[in-house]
Amino acid sequence: MAPARFNKDRVVLDTSLFVNPDVRASLGPTPTEALEAFLFIAAQIPILEFYMPPSIFEELMNFVQRESISGDLLVYLNQKSPRRHELTTPAFLLYELVDDIRERVNKGMRVAEQAVRSEKPLNEAIQELRRKYRDALREGIIDSKEDVDLLLLAMELDALLITADQGVVKWADKLGIRWLLPEKFKEYLMGSIKKAELLGEE
Amino acid sequence: MAPARFNKDRVVLDTSLFVNPDVRASLGPTPTEALEAFLFIAAQIPILEFYMPPSIFEELMNFVQRESISGDLLVYLNQKSPRRHELTTPAFLLYELVDDIRERVNKGMRVAEQAVRSEKPLNEAIQELRRKYRDALREGIIDSKEDVDLLLLAMELDALLITADQGVVKWADKLGIRWLLPEKFKEYLMGSIKKAELLGEE
Repeated sequence: MAPARFNKDRVVLDTSLFVNPDVRASLGPTPTEALEAFLFIAAQIPILEFYMPPSIFEELMNFVQRESISGDLLVYLNQKSPRRHELTTPAFLLYELVDDIRERVNKGMRVAEQAVRSEKPLNEAIQELRRKYRDALREGIIDSKEDVDLLLLAMELDALLITADQGVVKWADKLGIRWLLPEKFKEYLMGSIKKAELLGEE
Repeated sequence: MAPARFNKDRVVLDTSLFVNPDVRASLGPTPTEALEAFLFIAAQIPILEFYMPPSIFEELMNFVQRESISGDLLVYLNQKSPRRHELTTPAFLLYELVDDIRERVNKGMRVAEQAVRSEKPLNEAIQELRRKYRDALREGIIDSKEDVDLLLLAMELDALLITADQGVVKWADKLGIRWLLPEKFKEYLMGSIKKAELLGEE
């Protein structure tokens, strides 16, 4: 078993894998069942180490029945934050982030103006504003501490990042982080079991 | 003269010093005159090296009469971009930027909702929306390539940053960059002439 320690690949997981119904379908009908199924499979893959930033894990805990999750199996899902005060990121990212924000802020302004000019009933206009504004300013952007945690942890660990969040994937690309199509998550796990068997590690 | 080369302090300048009427008042009544006055003074300060990112210089050129600026004197104002693809910034900045944006985006949404509910005449409501939205989303934030250029160049050169932009000053603080109250710019220059004389470098 000893050499296996040096071959282990690391994988960083996002909540979306267990919460997003389309993505989790192959693992289970509910977030709780999907997480349990994952942990059960993960226990059979000695060549992979799974990580989740605590901020993401907390998010996930809002969607599952805590008491049904086996503590035994949590040994296969490491909770770890990135080293926020030691890590550095390339400066050109600041330019990209600032550009991105600028464009979205302008788009948000146009959406707001449209809503003011709208001749729809007030409630309808407000609903439409909220939806369009959110689309304009939130989608495809890294807009939360949790998103940054995922990216930095994957960078720090040189890990594969698996998420259904397109904004995070876009930034993973910029940072040279490996990522996987989220709908292939289960197949990837099953493939890893086979690979581990081939390596004589079952 | 030789040892002076090693004592030179570096200073990064923003357009606002020459364009913002309150700030440039002590240098000259117009941007062109303020820039000329500055260059004339700078030529008498052998202990300082002045820098301006080309993006900022381009901005400034929109406010001055290019043909009146002496090419001779431009030898005292270096144009240089930061090394965008070599520099790195601390990762915790990403968290601060993302938090900052999130808060502003939410504020922008509230401003937009208020405008939709406003019972003022359409044109007035739109004007108010634009002003409030700009205040909510733009003020005190680094929101342009030029802002990032100023900060990174000051970091790279370990320079003193002089700007009237409060958003940039806020971020200079986060990054440990030295900065000066912009209204003290001329006094700082005059003090530097005296200091240079005391050092026997006139």
